Amino acid sequence: MKKYNVCVVGATGLVGTEMLGSLENRQFPIAKIKALATARSAGSKVTFGGESIIVEEINNKSFEEMDFALFSGGEIASEEFAKIAVGSGCIVIDNSAAFRMDPEVPLIVPEVNPHALKGHSGIIANPNCSTIQMVMAMKPIYDKAGIKRVIVSTFQSVAGTGKAALSELEEQSEAILAGKNYTTTVYPHRIAFNILPQIGSFGKNGYSSEEMKMILETKKIMGDENIKVSATTVRVPVMRGHSESVNIETETKLTAEEARKLLAQFPGIVVIDDPDSSGYPMPYECAGREEVFVGRIREDLSCKNGLEMWVVADNLLKGAATNAVQIAELIIQRNLFNK
Amino acid sequence: MKKYNVCVVGATGLVGTEMLGSLENRQFPIAKIKALATARSAGSKVTFGGESIIVEEINNKSFEEMDFALFSGGEIASEEFAKIAVGSGCIVIDNSAAFRMDPEVPLIVPEVNPHALKGHSGIIANPNCSTIQMVMAMKPIYDKAGIKRVIVSTFQSVAGTGKAALSELEEQSEAILAGKNYTTTVYPHRIAFNILPQIGSFGKNGYSSEEMKMILETKKIMGDENIKVSATTVRVPVMRGHSESVNIETETKLTAEEARKLLAQFPGIVVIDDPDSSGYPMPYECAGREEVFVGRIREDLSCKNGLEMWVVADNLLKGAATNAVQIAELIIQRNLFNK
Repeated sequence: MKKYNVCVVGATGLVGTEMLGSLENRQFPIAKIKALATARSAGSKVTFGGESIIVEEINNKSFEEMDFALFSGGEIASEEFAKIAVGSGCIVIDNSAAFRMDPEVPLIVPEVNPHALKGHSGIIANPNCSTIQMVMAMKPIYDKAGIKRVIVSTFQSVAGTGKAALSELEEQSEAILAGKNYTTTVYPHRIAFNILPQIGSFGKNGYSSEEMKMILETKKIMGDENIKVSATTVRVPVMRGHSESVNIETETKLTAEEARKLLAQFPGIVVIDDPDSSGYPMPYECAGREEVFVGRIREDLSCKNGLEMWVVADNLLKGAATNAVQIAELIIQRNLFNK
Repeated sequence: MKKYNVCVVGATGLVGTEMLGSLENRQFPIAKIKALATARSAGSKVTFGGESIIVEEINNKSFEEMDFALFSGGEIASEEFAKIAVGSGCIVIDNSAAFRMDPEVPLIVPEVNPHALKGHSGIIANPNCSTIQMVMAMKPIYDKAGIKRVIVSTFQSVAGTGKAALSELEEQSEAILAGKNYTTTVYPHRIAFNILPQIGSFGKNGYSSEEMKMILETKKIMGDENIKVSATTVRVPVMRGHSESVNIETETKLTAEEARKLLAQFPGIVVIDDPDSSGYPMPYECAGREEVFVGRIREDLSCKNGLEMWVVADNLLKGAATNAVQIAELIIQRNLFNK
């Protein structure tokens, strides 16, 4: 079996760490692994396969002899280095928002739109975390009954913001429980024991950048500009794992039982839907798992062809690292190297 | 000015305590106040007007000479004693779900359907906390543009469950932060740093009892069985204050600006909607306030006549105690004593 040289850009971040973990856990066929970061983190160590790797400072020559570069260093790093990596003959799988809406760049969830990978030109975009888990739950329903409209409200964990946000949630929680003063540096308001209806910045139409990602990326991934989407994205005091309350209006009627069956059969989805024994997906149980979990599946009492459901996934895994590694696996399986 | 004898049933609970507080803060014209509870709490003390009152055990004679009885002792106490109180010539304002859907019992939010109080037969029901704040935000929009459909997802605090839930959230949070084991007794799963998509118990249609309250009570309060409602009610690790992501489809088009203006003019509503400076309602800021706070008002990108908004209120105040006291005030103002 052929093996590949892989580098992870932003290897010291939460997603970068999970990318290394996913490559290892999924037994990605690796010849050589390289961890890259900006000067600030260069020289620090990360772990892969039980061994520690020294993080190298990213530069224009970092991608020579690399087959895959998994980028999770933010938009600026992606804008600066993704095309250089492609120029070095490397396939870039980019977790930032830099190229997602570029019509030349495929935006891929392997279970949903693998066909869109064909004819890529070196950069493949990994979708936004909250979008990935939603389109996973939409896809089997779309294929059977069509989808006219989706209304989603999210309950997003702080891990999506990074390490500093995890510390802020913990430190604020400790301070509040002890009746002490707390500081707020990562978010515009305190997050501990509070709810922030803001993720990203707001546009003129009143939607946040995160909400617009869910709206626009969903249409692109589903390959259907006619699906109407509205989103309210909300930060909650949870360490890890995003939850979503998703209302779907289908073209033709699906019963809850039919939807449950379709979802359970779909690769990468686990249905947990046993209301009588309080069985439904929750972030603290789904953290660390690679699948998307769906429960609370029921027929919408406000709409003839409506379905309500509750979708939870680990935002660092299927919402980021796992999906990126799956894209690389798909490129290998289908021999889509474009060389 | 005439003064009234008032008793609070369930005076030692979270809502009962706030009922005493609301009576005091709103300067309700009180002649005599009485605190009632079951045998378990009788003899303990509560505070009113800076003085402590000994809690009396509720019995069939508790309501003699009382003008108003505010019930917050749960459904069983309401079922057992509300009619006895009415028989004693007392007006009952009941915060439990016991009589809310009884066609003989008005279900009142004073700013929304004060007219429905007329002709009551002694018991007036106080709606569910999450319903009250939603219908407050719906009413000015309904009056101007009509409402076809509402889809709501809630972010409900633990104060709605009672004192034991507040302790559970605090104790679990402390244990988790310290890396220790924790116990779960109030909720079916841990609530600290987690999200529970369950409030109440589940029915055959997959909706929870809390969700069905929001659906059925909304139609009754709005006096319009044609309003279609779907709800997903979710418990979040917040001490106090419920948040709601509300999607409203109107009969005729309203711009976000028009909706904002209508909401700001409505009594009891405060609009906080300044996205550029991260201005929106949040539970930790709205706790302790009697109003309903609305923000994130925007036109729904998925529906021609749709509006999205974010509604926050203190579930113990406007969601319970304040609304109950307002009902009593309205009865006095309109002389609806039925005697």
